Amino acid sequence: MILRSDQSLGRLVVAALWTLIPALTALPPARAADDLTEAYREPAGRILGAALTDEEGWRKASHLTQRIGHRLSGSPSLQAAIDWAFEEMQAEGLDKVWRQPVKVPHWVRGHESATLLEPIERPLDILGLGRSVGTPEGGITAPVVVVDSFEDLEARGREQVAGKIVLYAVPWMGYGKNREYRGKGASRAAALGAVAALIRSATPTSLYTPHTGGLRYDEDSPQIPAAAVTIEDAAWLRALAEAGEPIVVHLEMEAQTLPDADSANVIAEITGSELPDEVVVIGGHYDSWDVGQGAHDDGVACIAAWHALTLLKQLGLQPRRTLRVVLWTAEEIGGDGGRAYRDWVGDDIGDHVAAIEMDGGVERPVGFGLSLGNPWSEAEEEEPDDEAIRTAAVDRLRQIGRLLEAIEAGEISDGGGGADIAPLMRDGVPGMALKTVGEHYFDWHHTRADTLDKIDPQNFRRAVAMFAVMGYVLADMPDRLTDPVR
Amino acid sequence: MILRSDQSLGRLVVAALWTLIPALTALPPARAADDLTEAYREPAGRILGAALTDEEGWRKASHLTQRIGHRLSGSPSLQAAIDWAFEEMQAEGLDKVWRQPVKVPHWVRGHESATLLEPIERPLDILGLGRSVGTPEGGITAPVVVVDSFEDLEARGREQVAGKIVLYAVPWMGYGKNREYRGKGASRAAALGAVAALIRSATPTSLYTPHTGGLRYDEDSPQIPAAAVTIEDAAWLRALAEAGEPIVVHLEMEAQTLPDADSANVIAEITGSELPDEVVVIGGHYDSWDVGQGAHDDGVACIAAWHALTLLKQLGLQPRRTLRVVLWTAEEIGGDGGRAYRDWVGDDIGDHVAAIEMDGGVERPVGFGLSLGNPWSEAEEEEPDDEAIRTAAVDRLRQIGRLLEAIEAGEISDGGGGADIAPLMRDGVPGMALKTVGEHYFDWHHTRADTLDKIDPQNFRRAVAMFAVMGYVLADMPDRLTDPVR
Repeated sequence: MILRSDQSLGRLVVAALWTLIPALTALPPARAADDLTEAYREPAGRILGAALTDEEGWRKASHLTQRIGHRLSGSPSLQAAIDWAFEEMQAEGLDKVWRQPVKVPHWVRGHESATLLEPIERPLDILGLGRSVGTPEGGITAPVVVVDSFEDLEARGREQVAGKIVLYAVPWMGYGKNREYRGKGASRAAALGAVAALIRSATPTSLYTPHTGGLRYDEDSPQIPAAAVTIEDAAWLRALAEAGEPIVVHLEMEAQTLPDADSANVIAEITGSELPDEVVVIGGHYDSWDVGQGAHDDGVACIAAWHALTLLKQLGLQPRRTLRVVLWTAEEIGGDGGRAYRDWVGDDIGDHVAAIEMDGGVERPVGFGLSLGNPWSEAEEEEPDDEAIRTAAVDRLRQIGRLLEAIEAGEISDGGGGADIAPLMRDGVPGMALKTVGEHYFDWHHTRADTLDKIDPQNFRRAVAMFAVMGYVLADMPDRLTDPVR
Repeated sequence: MILRSDQSLGRLVVAALWTLIPALTALPPARAADDLTEAYREPAGRILGAALTDEEGWRKASHLTQRIGHRLSGSPSLQAAIDWAFEEMQAEGLDKVWRQPVKVPHWVRGHESATLLEPIERPLDILGLGRSVGTPEGGITAPVVVVDSFEDLEARGREQVAGKIVLYAVPWMGYGKNREYRGKGASRAAALGAVAALIRSATPTSLYTPHTGGLRYDEDSPQIPAAAVTIEDAAWLRALAEAGEPIVVHLEMEAQTLPDADSANVIAEITGSELPDEVVVIGGHYDSWDVGQGAHDDGVACIAAWHALTLLKQLGLQPRRTLRVVLWTAEEIGGDGGRAYRDWVGDDIGDHVAAIEMDGGVERPVGFGLSLGNPWSEAEEEEPDDEAIRTAAVDRLRQIGRLLEAIEAGEISDGGGGADIAPLMRDGVPGMALKTVGEHYFDWHHTRADTLDKIDPQNFRRAVAMFAVMGYVLADMPDRLTDPVR
């Protein structure tokens, strides 16, 4: 049995009714923690049954990754993916389907190559970094100085760095730390006169696999070309440098940034039956880097969120609030899609009751993480009510999570969100992440190896089920996620 | 105490002396199985101590893989590696150092590329197969037919295959089986009119990593170009084919076979003090494919065998028989080095008491495998004495293996040998393999990822210790490995 409340009664009335249920039905008092579990057992069962036996979602995942392929911001293939999703969503009869126009960066890789010239001649496999400038006509040939940290770079100073190619042969310290070198390495080296930067790929493991990703140029330093090298080549050149060998590299990159391109967030929803203006938003980023298939990052997660809506529609499960999927554009190269969505929501942001993003790969899912308030706020103390609200929200999520325990996907943990929903979270929307075991994600991330064959269709089906159950209950349950405990 | 025998006394006398030891020393009778263990405990300790604290061996491994690099048959870098080893061995004062001239195949890869044109345009990373012919000027553009076995190929027949590029999207079944497709796939496809062949890389895992390797053309079929694709692309194209998509690929390969080149086996020895004509030979193949550094396959194993001799020389441990290291040339592309060594040994092959090859990667070593007789013989029954000889040999190896138990490297198992010592084994030389856990070898094998950073220096040190202890005892012990039990 699903409780429905009349919005005009207000939340306190709903809460009062809700607390009466055990007494009214003359059953033993349910533990508070079990209320949502019991209330949604029946529709959750229908959702799980449909999701776990579904074929159509995997067909969509295959089409996106294998037939359309990778989807760089500004590329024809991203546009093809956007148009295909829009048309499919309309054909599926979702309540509202639209494309929100977004202007996006338009960086193109072009041809690129690197060759070690000294001490021996060998090709070096590289992937230029997103937003990088290209090399001048004819490329750059320069000695290489190998550093293992920004401190090491600074210690060497302009005297050793000017005119050189800086190779950051930094060890793997976790994505957050290694990303700093990818993002800032070029400008930090350029500030000391370097002519180009090579960065060890941000990954713990490699089979001679370069990993691309975005960089950000400082305004104060010259813009120099930058590319990722494999961890094999970083280790090799570092060893050569330590042995005192002179190292000379020739680098050619045609990379360039064109004027911003037209793109769009693809949006579809099941409009709420009673509180259509209140919204639970789910999704991922639809763009990818221009290598591999953008499968784990983040195409198949997008399909999982979208297909959750498709299945709910087919099952006739219309929640009280609106459940919306957004396939955000241009996350990888600036996050314009997420910001554009936040801007479009405008002053109605208080009606966004929760946002769930999946952007950590489609390995075996384990549950959801939650972040409340603005996780990036510099305020040191929580508001007095925050802890009570957090407890209430986590309790509700755990009740919903129990409906996913049979697929081992009901764990509720601290820390949620995602780059595309961060603009919503900064303005107070509760942010959640669909979490997986995360064992191999950074092996594949931003590489030619991010392909559909790395995804187990059963893990995809589980993710669809999770988006559908969590999204449906959050959109349908009497309270909002962060309402105070009654 | 190490027993030394006068060869002129003959083996029976030695055996008689040997069996008297426990009585003479008034110690409790040692179990027969412990005789070699006890007899060689002292020199084995010196060897282990030296090998496990050694730095110079790793320096040589680094020089070979990182400073010289990969070493394809006929290439300048293989020649540089040969000359460097020859000079280093002389400088180390090994007793005899020489280069045995060998004519070797001279295949060169040249530029190569593949591009999927239909249903979408994408680059495909390939590695042409060794011995493959190139494409005609301008390359080959043709539809692709995807098969999963030779049976599937035959079932499709000339009607579906003629004029096409055949992609063997065979699953991983183990190296022996997958190698059949790499070796014979081109000719089998050409026999049905195919214009080129693509073969899924022979590996269980991939990060978009193509694996090269040799092919063999039949005499009866046209020679068509053949290349390995990644398991990602094989899975992708197979899925596209199953979805009914037309697949068109453009292939360009400049590969060609030049006239045979001059090369050499590098040979060094510690000449036996009493039985210099009896030989224990250890080694690996010094050539590699022309990608990566040829580290696991097989450069670092070569250095381990060589450095075992170096350490024995430095320790002043001269065995009664000759202990010889051979760095065989051109194993990858035909095995000419191994055959040339066998030919050079000639009628003296009966004096080769054992041959040990390490060619399965330098992961954590576990022990040695043994094969006696000619493992490729088609004779169905063993000679009556064979089982007794095998038992005696395994007992001796287990006694020696106990000296390596502290480094968990003393296991003796069935099945030894290697491609370079196979010509010796066919003519009766006992063949052994230095074996490792073999967990990841086929991830790296024949790829750009076969680099020194994948080798733990401690595993290298263990392999050096194993070659030195096993080689020394086999060359020094009173009996030959396959002498009958006394």
